[in-house]
Amino acid sequence: MSAQTSAARYELLHTAGSARRGRLHLTHGVVETPAFMPVGTQGTVKGLTPEDLSRSGAQMVLANTYHLWVRPGHELIRDLGGLHRFMGWDGPILTDSGGFQVFSLAELCKVTEEGARFRSPLDGQWRMLTPEISLEVQETMGVDIAMAFDECVEFPATRQRVAEGMARTSRWLRRCLAARKHPERTALFGIVQGGVELDLRREHAEELVSLDLDGYAVGGLSVGENRDLLFSTARATTPFLPTNKVRYLMGVGYPWDLVDGVAAGVDIFDCVLPTRSARFGGIFTSEGRLNIKNARFREDSGPLDPSCPCYTCTRFSRAYLRHLFMANELLAPRLLTLHNVTFYQRLMARIRDAVVQGEAAFASLSAEVHGWMGDEGADPDA
Amino acid sequence: MSAQTSAARYELLHTAGSARRGRLHLTHGVVETPAFMPVGTQGTVKGLTPEDLSRSGAQMVLANTYHLWVRPGHELIRDLGGLHRFMGWDGPILTDSGGFQVFSLAELCKVTEEGARFRSPLDGQWRMLTPEISLEVQETMGVDIAMAFDECVEFPATRQRVAEGMARTSRWLRRCLAARKHPERTALFGIVQGGVELDLRREHAEELVSLDLDGYAVGGLSVGENRDLLFSTARATTPFLPTNKVRYLMGVGYPWDLVDGVAAGVDIFDCVLPTRSARFGGIFTSEGRLNIKNARFREDSGPLDPSCPCYTCTRFSRAYLRHLFMANELLAPRLLTLHNVTFYQRLMARIRDAVVQGEAAFASLSAEVHGWMGDEGADPDA
Repeated sequence: MSAQTSAARYELLHTAGSARRGRLHLTHGVVETPAFMPVGTQGTVKGLTPEDLSRSGAQMVLANTYHLWVRPGHELIRDLGGLHRFMGWDGPILTDSGGFQVFSLAELCKVTEEGARFRSPLDGQWRMLTPEISLEVQETMGVDIAMAFDECVEFPATRQRVAEGMARTSRWLRRCLAARKHPERTALFGIVQGGVELDLRREHAEELVSLDLDGYAVGGLSVGENRDLLFSTARATTPFLPTNKVRYLMGVGYPWDLVDGVAAGVDIFDCVLPTRSARFGGIFTSEGRLNIKNARFREDSGPLDPSCPCYTCTRFSRAYLRHLFMANELLAPRLLTLHNVTFYQRLMARIRDAVVQGEAAFASLSAEVHGWMGDEGADPDA
Repeated sequence: MSAQTSAARYELLHTAGSARRGRLHLTHGVVETPAFMPVGTQGTVKGLTPEDLSRSGAQMVLANTYHLWVRPGHELIRDLGGLHRFMGWDGPILTDSGGFQVFSLAELCKVTEEGARFRSPLDGQWRMLTPEISLEVQETMGVDIAMAFDECVEFPATRQRVAEGMARTSRWLRRCLAARKHPERTALFGIVQGGVELDLRREHAEELVSLDLDGYAVGGLSVGENRDLLFSTARATTPFLPTNKVRYLMGVGYPWDLVDGVAAGVDIFDCVLPTRSARFGGIFTSEGRLNIKNARFREDSGPLDPSCPCYTCTRFSRAYLRHLFMANELLAPRLLTLHNVTFYQRLMARIRDAVVQGEAAFASLSAEVHGWMGDEGADPDA
């Protein structure tokens, strides 16, 4: 399939060094890139409505194939008009392959060449996830972008183990390609493996590129290696990907990771960080991170982030938000999530502008964002 | 204080039998009555923003003095500009006296003539709640309507016990009146006690009326007596209350309770039912009650209530809402609460219209609403 007829047509608009400003044309709309996808695991970004998401500036959301397959089931979702209609979100949706969730079930999962056999913690049933089933589930739900079922190798791993995972990922990708029924509607992205072995990354990238896929993910990262290794690997991989296809770095990350990912030539990202952190009181602001539980906010009449135009920041004080959080009120995760998601979307908009303005502007923004790294505030992951 | 200068001026517009259509003028706005107040115990109606509340048609909310006094504290709320500003709600707010919550702490609470000494489950501290402190907390938070600190007698109780509670309520009311510092801003409502002894109800109503209060609650009900006894007592009490003051039935109730309360001459109500039920999946609809957990909604593409214009009903299917609920998603209580609160507000609007149209219209609406009583669906309280 050529780029012209792809269900994920990527337009490169500007570059600043390796950073790219582009536009991704999908079945359910256009995504301005670089873009960050909030995570809606079970067909909902926790606590937010589609209306909240639109207002935050989110263009595309990620949903988890594994969760939706197990409950409520892809056939039910199809019968109710597809995932977009089911969750009331009419913008683009990307789904993962489900593999990562299944593999993390550890001793409840056995991986063979056929696929992954596992016992669902939800209903205790043994199930089999294969490349064909993963793709069928994703296509049946009618998503814009399906991810190929891949084998994500643990870190650290021997070079041989990495090479084996890479080869299996390629075989599984070919099975996904053969199983496609709706290429005109659902794009299929392949995942470049190769661990942190740069020659294997290149080899795998070139192999996947020869298959002329709709888009490419730099996979197998953010699994335990340090951030320098993560970004040096990403930087070493993207040069072997075509400029007319979109690039996706899965499960990344902090604001400073996003600027580094963009600098490495990546276009789209997803991460549970802004949403999950919010539920633990961890807030991202233009003045650095903070945790709303902190006693110093008890009487603070200011907004979470003075420069943020979101409903939370324009309407409520840190003191009130802290009160809601300490009182275990439902409104706390909702309002904090709305802010964090908005913050991430505004950051992406600034990144897009900076790339258009050029390398100096991008470097300046990158320095500002890295400045937030050292900031105080409890780690939102804690 | 005369009705003209009261912080809670009531205008009687129409009657249909004992039912009244009126308008209550408060410091933060006008409430069209009969009205139902959603409960915002800790300074938030669980899961909803002030924007959601406005859209639902809610005019006034109730907040709990006890909870806010203990956390975050009335002085903090005052320092942050008062309860309205703190919670971002600029419409009227009524607070209870805190007595009911303290008394329900059971063995952790000792009631004397001075007030109630109790041990807070939140911080383990012993505290004293008196008529003066209750009123001070309420006035300090700057609410529109403060409730007098009363002694709510358990049911059943001997006539002597009821008479003693009534007398103590009167003495405590006089102490509240003496303690007022902001009568121009915060109205004070007295609570008519007397259990189900109708002659005591009359005696107490007349005593309270002689004090020319801003409004009157029919108290000590909804504490275990059956609904016939509740409404016969309310019907026997309201004739002794002045027509130019508003009447409040606390903690009531189901939709059919609201029409019966209005028929008994009551103007305002509050209850946790629509909000609490929603968090357990219990939904009120124009076709009767339902519980979203029910398996028959698994593939139901219809809205919760086909006649409801709320965001939940216009945007999401029962199948999706059931999925969210079963998956324990934060969005479930939020969307279900929004619907139930909207349903209650629309019911009140219909009640107001019916009273204007006259007795036949009101009787017809009342019959329709009572028809929902026998409907299937798990009890939302279950």
